[in-house]
Amino acid sequence: MSILDSDIVNELQGLMGDRVTQAVAIRDQHGRDEGWHPAAAPDAVVFAESEADVVATVEACARYGIPLIPFGVGTSLEGNIGAIHGGVCIDLSRMTRVLEVNVEDLDARVQAGITRTVLNKALLRDGLFFPIDPGADATIGGMTATRASGTNAVRYGTMKDNVLGLTAVLADGSVIRTGNRARKSSAGYDLTRLLVGSEGTLAVITEVSLRLYGMPEVIGGAVCSFDGIGGAVRTVIEAIQLGVPVARLEFLDEVQVDACNRFSGLDLPVAPLLLVEFHGSAVAVADQASTVESLALGNGGRDWSWSTDQAERERLWTARHQAYYAAKALRPGCLAIPTDVCVPISRLADCVLETRADIDALKLTAPIVGHVGDGNFHVLVLFDPDHPDELDRAKELNARVIARAQGMGGTCTGEHGIGYGKLEFMRGEHDEGELRAMAAVKAALDPAGILNPGKMIPEIPALTG
Amino acid sequence: MSILDSDIVNELQGLMGDRVTQAVAIRDQHGRDEGWHPAAAPDAVVFAESEADVVATVEACARYGIPLIPFGVGTSLEGNIGAIHGGVCIDLSRMTRVLEVNVEDLDARVQAGITRTVLNKALLRDGLFFPIDPGADATIGGMTATRASGTNAVRYGTMKDNVLGLTAVLADGSVIRTGNRARKSSAGYDLTRLLVGSEGTLAVITEVSLRLYGMPEVIGGAVCSFDGIGGAVRTVIEAIQLGVPVARLEFLDEVQVDACNRFSGLDLPVAPLLLVEFHGSAVAVADQASTVESLALGNGGRDWSWSTDQAERERLWTARHQAYYAAKALRPGCLAIPTDVCVPISRLADCVLETRADIDALKLTAPIVGHVGDGNFHVLVLFDPDHPDELDRAKELNARVIARAQGMGGTCTGEHGIGYGKLEFMRGEHDEGELRAMAAVKAALDPAGILNPGKMIPEIPALTG
Repeated sequence: MSILDSDIVNELQGLMGDRVTQAVAIRDQHGRDEGWHPAAAPDAVVFAESEADVVATVEACARYGIPLIPFGVGTSLEGNIGAIHGGVCIDLSRMTRVLEVNVEDLDARVQAGITRTVLNKALLRDGLFFPIDPGADATIGGMTATRASGTNAVRYGTMKDNVLGLTAVLADGSVIRTGNRARKSSAGYDLTRLLVGSEGTLAVITEVSLRLYGMPEVIGGAVCSFDGIGGAVRTVIEAIQLGVPVARLEFLDEVQVDACNRFSGLDLPVAPLLLVEFHGSAVAVADQASTVESLALGNGGRDWSWSTDQAERERLWTARHQAYYAAKALRPGCLAIPTDVCVPISRLADCVLETRADIDALKLTAPIVGHVGDGNFHVLVLFDPDHPDELDRAKELNARVIARAQGMGGTCTGEHGIGYGKLEFMRGEHDEGELRAMAAVKAALDPAGILNPGKMIPEIPALTG
Repeated sequence: MSILDSDIVNELQGLMGDRVTQAVAIRDQHGRDEGWHPAAAPDAVVFAESEADVVATVEACARYGIPLIPFGVGTSLEGNIGAIHGGVCIDLSRMTRVLEVNVEDLDARVQAGITRTVLNKALLRDGLFFPIDPGADATIGGMTATRASGTNAVRYGTMKDNVLGLTAVLADGSVIRTGNRARKSSAGYDLTRLLVGSEGTLAVITEVSLRLYGMPEVIGGAVCSFDGIGGAVRTVIEAIQLGVPVARLEFLDEVQVDACNRFSGLDLPVAPLLLVEFHGSAVAVADQASTVESLALGNGGRDWSWSTDQAERERLWTARHQAYYAAKALRPGCLAIPTDVCVPISRLADCVLETRADIDALKLTAPIVGHVGDGNFHVLVLFDPDHPDELDRAKELNARVIARAQGMGGTCTGEHGIGYGKLEFMRGEHDEGELRAMAAVKAALDPAGILNPGKMIPEIPALTG
């Protein structure tokens, strides 16, 4: 049913007053994420302030058969929150409470709308932190829904590994609480991880229980230049094989390093740069740094610099911290497609090198930044929105990178999710049986298909009984 | 349909010859696991040697509507493989091939029937290992199906964290391959982790891709006695908060230590014993041991001993390695109920102490062994099978321990699974909505309910659309 033919807005306003709006500016803001895909505004926006608000909204949408799209702060990149079939957007950004922090158990329960930096500020007084750090200051609910990760994943894992349980509202308005406070359990299907990464298509997540970590006693930062990506990747492979518990392993290609030199006034060699971070005791950090240094030098690394002093290690990592802005500054006024493939690390150097050749062949400007410890890298493909041909070439590059990664046994998205922007690439990654199983699960939990419709699963034939 | 009214056995024998049998001894062997629950033999057993065998068997069972139960080597403990509704048991223990080992990517793909020790022998030549170690030499498929873990979980995680993808045959005979070779992905529902821990109720797992690790350069082993469990648990909590990457953190209570002293001729203080293992470089292991030693001494620990010499650290850990046999030897001829609760670590000391009081009140002999880093512990409740009253008291203890753990926010099973032995405890752990969601997923993927029926999910009302 179209929202225009229903009383749903009046009904929701009767329950929640001015927390329900059809103001054009607010609708527009809720149809657009930080990606490059066309926006699609919802017909109405509900600002939920409680689980009861979410339940009421889901129940109303279920009753009228109207699409419902969960929304955090809109930092997704693949049109994950676009209301491509219209409907109601439920904004959870007012649900920001830290409900419990259990210092001894290293866990916390938070409302879905809290952002990761606000959470980390709240954890600071207990000497704890939550490590998952997508570039944006996303909400924990949004990070859960997209199975986000970031620079710490090589040591701390992704949202898949750090969500212990959650509370969610299913498509019929019923509330489920998954997981428990034990560190492990073999009691039933893992509904927690079924909902992590489901992008609002199976349920609206309202609370998340998270695994926390003690702040490291010492943090060391290092950088090292290489003549080619091969030596940098080989260093990473050897460090991981040796079991060095490296916290961050980041990579900038020579185009990105050049951009950083110009933007941040650095004088790094214009060559592939490996950035490493170590967490642990003073002895452990020094031991790890010494091991990685010798691996790096053995693989052609040069200008190895490292420090455990906060100001100095932040200076060393300046290029990484400013990478996004430096890249954008290469062509002011341009937009960008951020690719997001992830490949087995044995294929990473080839994948990056072949991608660089593609970039050159397509005459594009596109620096590369990688979470090299995971085999995940992003090409920031700049394009002038006033030149449709550039967008076409940028899209062509994205498609080539994805096909290459999938051909190497990798994925079209390491951490951004599918939304509707990568729907067309699901078939290249999952066989028909897997897509049918996903569709069957979706139909089981959301038979009317009201939750974030048109996302994640391409149209496929139904699973036969 | 009953197997007796069908041609299924003839049909399967036509396809697979003498790999399909109704011999009583083989049927009996396949209805009994290593637990204490009554056995339930299947009507026939198929020894699958290929994916095609599995597909043919599933398709035949689907066509006739006959239950199908996947079986590895039968080391489960909760009646997970009992054919309580009859049907066909599919034995995968002949599917033992290592299909690929990717040394640089630290992953392998294996057939489901390989056992963990056979796999680890095959990995040795590459200096790699797979860390998940349930007590038994289980198959990788069985470990995947029960979401197994063991003593290494505090550092390396459980099967949930170490299965990268799998191949499985769904109830309609279609084959799906989940996951890919990238270390992380946000492309669609996490079907891998939906099948991990599903105990054969959603699909028959035929291949598993696993995460591997480099053999540690140095392994250190330590033991330390405490006057009470409180000091041991506090030591563990502080070590984890400090981020010490301890590999193993095991606990024996005073009854278990006493049993070990008698069985293995040791002279450990009859007091709670903490056993610790460290993996890493020589420097890292020494640093970790020094940190944990000072934490232990600060919490009342005494007789701290540690070594990186293999023979010496194995001697130190003798009590742990022999714990099961030492416990059984306390009452020769007795059977045992192994409990398996897991609680938040902040509640672990209370949970163990209250459990010990219950054991004494019920006049049972029951040593306690814990994977203390995870909050998981096992009480081995010995009972004389010729005295039904003892079994009743042992069951009563199991129920009390479970109720206590669930009341503390924990789980009735940290690593053994539900089978039919713990079906009655699912309601104490999961709310109605969660059980309905599990049932909906089960119905979506196995609409006729042929896969391992009567396990995992208690009877509940259907999910309303």
